Amino acid sequence: MSALKERILKDGKVFPNNVLKVDSFMNHQIDPSIIREIAREFYEIFKDAGITKIFTIEASGIAPAIATAELFDVPMLFAKKTQPSTLANQERYETDVHSYTKNVTSRVIISKQYLNADDVVLIVDDFLANGEAALGLIDLVEQAGAIVAGIGICIEKSFQDGRTKLDAKGFKVHSVCRIASLDNEKVTFLED
Amino acid sequence: MSALKERILKDGKVFPNNVLKVDSFMNHQIDPSIIREIAREFYEIFKDAGITKIFTIEASGIAPAIATAELFDVPMLFAKKTQPSTLANQERYETDVHSYTKNVTSRVIISKQYLNADDVVLIVDDFLANGEAALGLIDLVEQAGAIVAGIGICIEKSFQDGRTKLDAKGFKVHSVCRIASLDNEKVTFLED
Repeated sequence: MSALKERILKDGKVFPNNVLKVDSFMNHQIDPSIIREIAREFYEIFKDAGITKIFTIEASGIAPAIATAELFDVPMLFAKKTQPSTLANQERYETDVHSYTKNVTSRVIISKQYLNADDVVLIVDDFLANGEAALGLIDLVEQAGAIVAGIGICIEKSFQDGRTKLDAKGFKVHSVCRIASLDNEKVTFLED
Repeated sequence: MSALKERILKDGKVFPNNVLKVDSFMNHQIDPSIIREIAREFYEIFKDAGITKIFTIEASGIAPAIATAELFDVPMLFAKKTQPSTLANQERYETDVHSYTKNVTSRVIISKQYLNADDVVLIVDDFLANGEAALGLIDLVEQAGAIVAGIGICIEKSFQDGRTKLDAKGFKVHSVCRIASLDNEKVTFLED
């Protein structure tokens, strides 16, 4: 069992509405050894894919993405939820990402400078649930004419439909852990 | 000259109102080799300070903070600008941080769980200008009864008053590069 799975069983907390709180080691306080192990796994899976850029969305994706970028020795790019004062409209790609958890839709943007048709992109994020963030990132990559070589997810809620949507579109998705259920306040992994 | 300084001279862009845009390698697209060098420098400076936690604020502080945390082999904690749905009022410390660049004041929060009186904290951030973010993080550490052992900054705008404020309060600040001036669209380092 991976260190991430062990840590989820030990320190993850299940809340109503299928919320899994992992903020003691993943997305508020962060354990760098867990992040490093996740990055190594993404590297093993995608090392022969010709990756030129790691792409994520602020804020919780940044830690696994920068650790992954270091192993691939390529730049990391994160999509921003707020508009930098120094980036004009015509200089950016933008898309909308809906969060079901927070029930808000956020406009997310990247500078056109940092993704182009030569890029082969590995998308990295902390969670995959309904797939809205991943689909938004894919949209940005495709606006740039770049290729999505794969999607690396730390924690997949396999009982929600994000994975199915990405599989249906033919993307290669690798999730470090896949959660089959959070019923009865208990984490059950898909392969258990 | 450090790799960060060289990169600022090569790829940093100076905009009106003393804005230095480093989004090709620091805070939008991120070069992991620059981040690693910054982390190594913070480690060298503060390795004997008994650091138990690296503390930053989302989003641009996360990359240097997680790389630094890995070297210290301690957890990283980042203050959040939005309120997680799973964190009740009485479970968090909060403070207000004003951004002069964006002219907005943001409420930033941390969970009380992740900082306590035993912690010896190294604060890490990408920029130090007016010191508002650093002072906000210091306030959160002090609310928790923890100790600020030092403040590690990637890029200090030494012509603004943040550094002076932190020095006056007796904090140990280490900045990888200190910018004396951005006049005439030119970056001049303090020691040049």
